[in-house]
Amino acid sequence: MRRGDTLFFETPVGVLSWGSSVGTMEGQGPLGSCFDHVARDNRFGKQTWEQAESRMVELACESALSKCDLTLSRIDCAFGGDLLNQCISTGFAARGLGIPYFGLYGACSTMAESLILGAMTVAGGFAQQALCMASSHFCSAERQYRFPLEYGGQRPPTAQWTATACGAAVLSAEGSGVRITAATPGRVYDPGITDSSNMGAAMAQSAYETLRTYFRDSGTGPEQYDLMVTGDLAAIGRAVVIDLFRQDGVELGDRYQDCGMLLYDSSQDVHAGASGCGCSAAVLCGRLLPDLASGKLKKVLFCGTGAMMSPTSANQGESIPGICHRVCLEGGL
Amino acid sequence: MRRGDTLFFETPVGVLSWGSSVGTMEGQGPLGSCFDHVARDNRFGKQTWEQAESRMVELACESALSKCDLTLSRIDCAFGGDLLNQCISTGFAARGLGIPYFGLYGACSTMAESLILGAMTVAGGFAQQALCMASSHFCSAERQYRFPLEYGGQRPPTAQWTATACGAAVLSAEGSGVRITAATPGRVYDPGITDSSNMGAAMAQSAYETLRTYFRDSGTGPEQYDLMVTGDLAAIGRAVVIDLFRQDGVELGDRYQDCGMLLYDSSQDVHAGASGCGCSAAVLCGRLLPDLASGKLKKVLFCGTGAMMSPTSANQGESIPGICHRVCLEGGL
Repeated sequence: MRRGDTLFFETPVGVLSWGSSVGTMEGQGPLGSCFDHVARDNRFGKQTWEQAESRMVELACESALSKCDLTLSRIDCAFGGDLLNQCISTGFAARGLGIPYFGLYGACSTMAESLILGAMTVAGGFAQQALCMASSHFCSAERQYRFPLEYGGQRPPTAQWTATACGAAVLSAEGSGVRITAATPGRVYDPGITDSSNMGAAMAQSAYETLRTYFRDSGTGPEQYDLMVTGDLAAIGRAVVIDLFRQDGVELGDRYQDCGMLLYDSSQDVHAGASGCGCSAAVLCGRLLPDLASGKLKKVLFCGTGAMMSPTSANQGESIPGICHRVCLEGGL
Repeated sequence: MRRGDTLFFETPVGVLSWGSSVGTMEGQGPLGSCFDHVARDNRFGKQTWEQAESRMVELACESALSKCDLTLSRIDCAFGGDLLNQCISTGFAARGLGIPYFGLYGACSTMAESLILGAMTVAGGFAQQALCMASSHFCSAERQYRFPLEYGGQRPPTAQWTATACGAAVLSAEGSGVRITAATPGRVYDPGITDSSNMGAAMAQSAYETLRTYFRDSGTGPEQYDLMVTGDLAAIGRAVVIDLFRQDGVELGDRYQDCGMLLYDSSQDVHAGASGCGCSAAVLCGRLLPDLASGKLKKVLFCGTGAMMSPTSANQGESIPGICHRVCLEGGL
């Protein structure tokens, strides 16, 4: 059923299992013990950072599949993407999966985008099981977006740290436990920010608009959710979202968190917090889905936020458009 | 209904209208008179090639919408992508559209990928109307993948010419006339080719596998279609597909064409033929859909083929994985 921009799934789509793989620094953070695979070396046994990221994607998928005891032949299709030019880390991982593959580009909103597309595909009866995933790697992203690590570039306090992380989830028509009950695909908003070291602020409006749209379409408010989580606005973007809702007379309170502020602790020198497609994907698959399965969380709004810019658009003086895709996850149904 | 890898839509999805916009050289080619908008200048009135590509996307969308007399407020969501790093030309165009947007990366298979996802979304009841699009621009692609134009780089005979082109189509639950009746999402295949100036050969296996899968799933053969068209394998890739089927004892014959060989004529010095997401999108929206609507064509297999590599993966010595997404289009239903 559709109301406004929001899809309410008549038969909620099950999240059957999930897997996560992260780098060394993410393993040392507050969620370190939540992840299925923590790298001993961020090269994941490979020769290049890009190959390492592909391997990390494979590891997350393997974990997700092993937990639901399904082989790849039972997965009808995969949805995924990453931050690299031409999304090569997921594309090369998909070569190894050998199942129908839809490549996505939603910047850091990719995990939420893949969950919406996967949920529609399953709920529409076009797949029995679908694999959804997103990844990022600090070293491959840093080289592409900013500088090779060896340059030792300085970062301003508003900058975010691209997480070395991947999350993968298996959606199913048959799943029990955690379910996707509703989704709001995002529109692109551009508040005119041009500083690519301040992407949290650039994406904040899209998070606000998508959440506000969903509250309107569903007739609910923040108090009806155990947790609302954006990913990844980090400290500055989260503060902007709180301010925007406050102008509407709505207090989000502590139930509103951001994946970019959950992945690292304050001693880890990541400035405003984490970013990268893999951050929200790994927080989802390492922490939120397990907490929904155990009953610790009952109703969660997972809002993936992406900055749809490139170094080329930034160099040409373009502002940074943001997007936010949202799914509602419910446990114990 | 699903059989093997192929989705057969119980209620076929209508293709309500379509639009196309191309550059000057494409306007001078054999299909020049088919397109809705032919640029007088490949900058499309903008300052940069990337902004020009975004403007071209907007023009194709405007044409598609004007022909079905729908405003953007009646379009529930858009699916699209391009070849640029972080898919900025479509992302920035989506900012102007202001409707829910799913960013895709399927390389030159993007138009077919967007049609499959759009058709599933409409057939599943999650959207009444969906906009599907893909674009490429010779100048933005050449700078990114090879050399700035001013370098005058030499191209080998196997090379393809990235088309300056965009196609956009409106899918609808209510459409009559042309319909999408089946779709086969592609798997990633890698025959081990490492020459990024010979991508047609690298993608040919994926086209063969997806077509073969569909013939198996549907119990049909080449003779049951007026036209089977890949996009974009160009001369060398098309010859490989013909050879692969011949080894199976199947003759594709002249009913098998490639969009990369339809867009330009032999005097236009494009070597093996055209490439780029926009090529198959514009051939579809400029030529194939009108021919299906007029009854000149009755049953067409549209097979988008993409090379899932990047300059980084090529520089690291990786081979070129290919993907092929396929939809079956029928007229006069």
